[in-house]
Amino acid sequence: MQPLESQFPKHVVIVGVGLIGGSIAAAVRQRFPDCRITGVGRSTSRLAACVDFGLIDDGTTKVVPDEIHESAVIVVCLPVDLIAATVISIAKVVPDSVLVTDAGSVKRLICDAVEVSGAASRFVGAHPIAGSDRSGFEHAETDLFVDRACIVTPQSGEARSGNTKSVDRIAAFWRAIGCRVTVMSPAQHDRMLAYTSHLPHLMAAAAVAAIGADRTEFAGSGYADTTRVAAGSPQLWRQILSGNARDVVAALSDAERILRDYRHALESGNADCLELLLSQAAEIRRRSP
Amino acid sequence: MQPLESQFPKHVVIVGVGLIGGSIAAAVRQRFPDCRITGVGRSTSRLAACVDFGLIDDGTTKVVPDEIHESAVIVVCLPVDLIAATVISIAKVVPDSVLVTDAGSVKRLICDAVEVSGAASRFVGAHPIAGSDRSGFEHAETDLFVDRACIVTPQSGEARSGNTKSVDRIAAFWRAIGCRVTVMSPAQHDRMLAYTSHLPHLMAAAAVAAIGADRTEFAGSGYADTTRVAAGSPQLWRQILSGNARDVVAALSDAERILRDYRHALESGNADCLELLLSQAAEIRRRSP
Repeated sequence: MQPLESQFPKHVVIVGVGLIGGSIAAAVRQRFPDCRITGVGRSTSRLAACVDFGLIDDGTTKVVPDEIHESAVIVVCLPVDLIAATVISIAKVVPDSVLVTDAGSVKRLICDAVEVSGAASRFVGAHPIAGSDRSGFEHAETDLFVDRACIVTPQSGEARSGNTKSVDRIAAFWRAIGCRVTVMSPAQHDRMLAYTSHLPHLMAAAAVAAIGADRTEFAGSGYADTTRVAAGSPQLWRQILSGNARDVVAALSDAERILRDYRHALESGNADCLELLLSQAAEIRRRSP
Repeated sequence: MQPLESQFPKHVVIVGVGLIGGSIAAAVRQRFPDCRITGVGRSTSRLAACVDFGLIDDGTTKVVPDEIHESAVIVVCLPVDLIAATVISIAKVVPDSVLVTDAGSVKRLICDAVEVSGAASRFVGAHPIAGSDRSGFEHAETDLFVDRACIVTPQSGEARSGNTKSVDRIAAFWRAIGCRVTVMSPAQHDRMLAYTSHLPHLMAAAAVAAIGADRTEFAGSGYADTTRVAAGSPQLWRQILSGNARDVVAALSDAERILRDYRHALESGNADCLELLLSQAAEIRRRSP
């Protein structure tokens, strides 16, 4: 359900115009050509290149542009450890009617920090589950978000107070650039992502480390697929995993227990147990999207 | 280095004409159109379909065809638990000049059993590291083996006695259908594959089981890639893992230790340690083929 053109914000501000921020700009540009798009970044030359590239109308190194439309939506697309502080400093200075969202892949730490700061009424967190191996706005994709899940995470305080209008506006924003939006709490989001995203990353990284550098010459497509994500940025993943440590530890403990079950089945020669474990996993995987 | 046409066997017998056996037939057919290809299987109707499909010249349900060329190579492409017994019964009845190889993904158990039976002089084990998610000769691919590694595993007894002629003939066979051949012992092969293939399968299966069926709606491409192999046949993987239990247990223990390191880093809030572990894995993965 796409909002009418007239309901889409007249101004979108993207803080951090990398692959995700750039793809948001590209999607807005294509679908709402009359919307003004402002990029916020550290480097004036990169911002100028981004204007030349056609993704943004103007760029600034100030965390909040001087001119901001009263219906603007500000999307913070920074590494997860920088999001909360940025949201808080933006919320202090923008008009009441402006809403802030983000694209960070952990939510509880960010939403809690924003709530404690008193800026929660201006912010609705989000996590569009989309990405690419590449980085930089040069690799932006207009359709990166089409049919991808976006989890919108209202603060519990907001949900309690019944302030759903800002949640609806932010959900509509993500829907308008192609996402399938689901609303859940920051804690539910983090618990789920610990399993569906953070655990697979650690399993891939642990497999790579166990296999080592010298054996990869004889690795087949199973190795290539299973370990692909382990090449991702250690700095970004440090922040994601540290920002969701409690839930990731729970997911890791589950995985360790299951690996132990496999090892015990092999050590005791219990091939029936081994096949049962393999069958359960194959059944789940075959029914996965 | 492809052998001259005249050096390629005049007759190739493929025992088990599924995806792998069918792809061997397709590769031989294309490269050596004068070579006779016989398929051995359980089902006369499937064999007839395979003849109609153009992959084999004739088919039989006898484990060894009545007519067999003195220079024939017999390739056993059965599930790993059936290979040794099949090789042994073939070796008893074929002329001395006929060689047998296989395509099984474990080697020590098979080669040991063949050696104990006294049939080792007729057999040189092999493992072409190639495959597909699909099964059945209908999905055979002419180029499935092109530039893929094939590990040829002479029995230690054979290597000790300097009987390298049969090893050379079998290596030349696999090379002629496109493989890059490497020779190592069955034990070296199994140890390596425990890490590069069997461990990734178990890591994928354990991740799927930990994630569970209910969370996959929100899984992204990281989940899809990391867990793809877990959908593979539980019956085939039971045999592969059981057939290489000792080495798989060693690989699993290594992976469990690394996951514990990750968990301890997260539990103690040691983000520098976490990033170091992630960096080591990313570095290895980025340099992988």
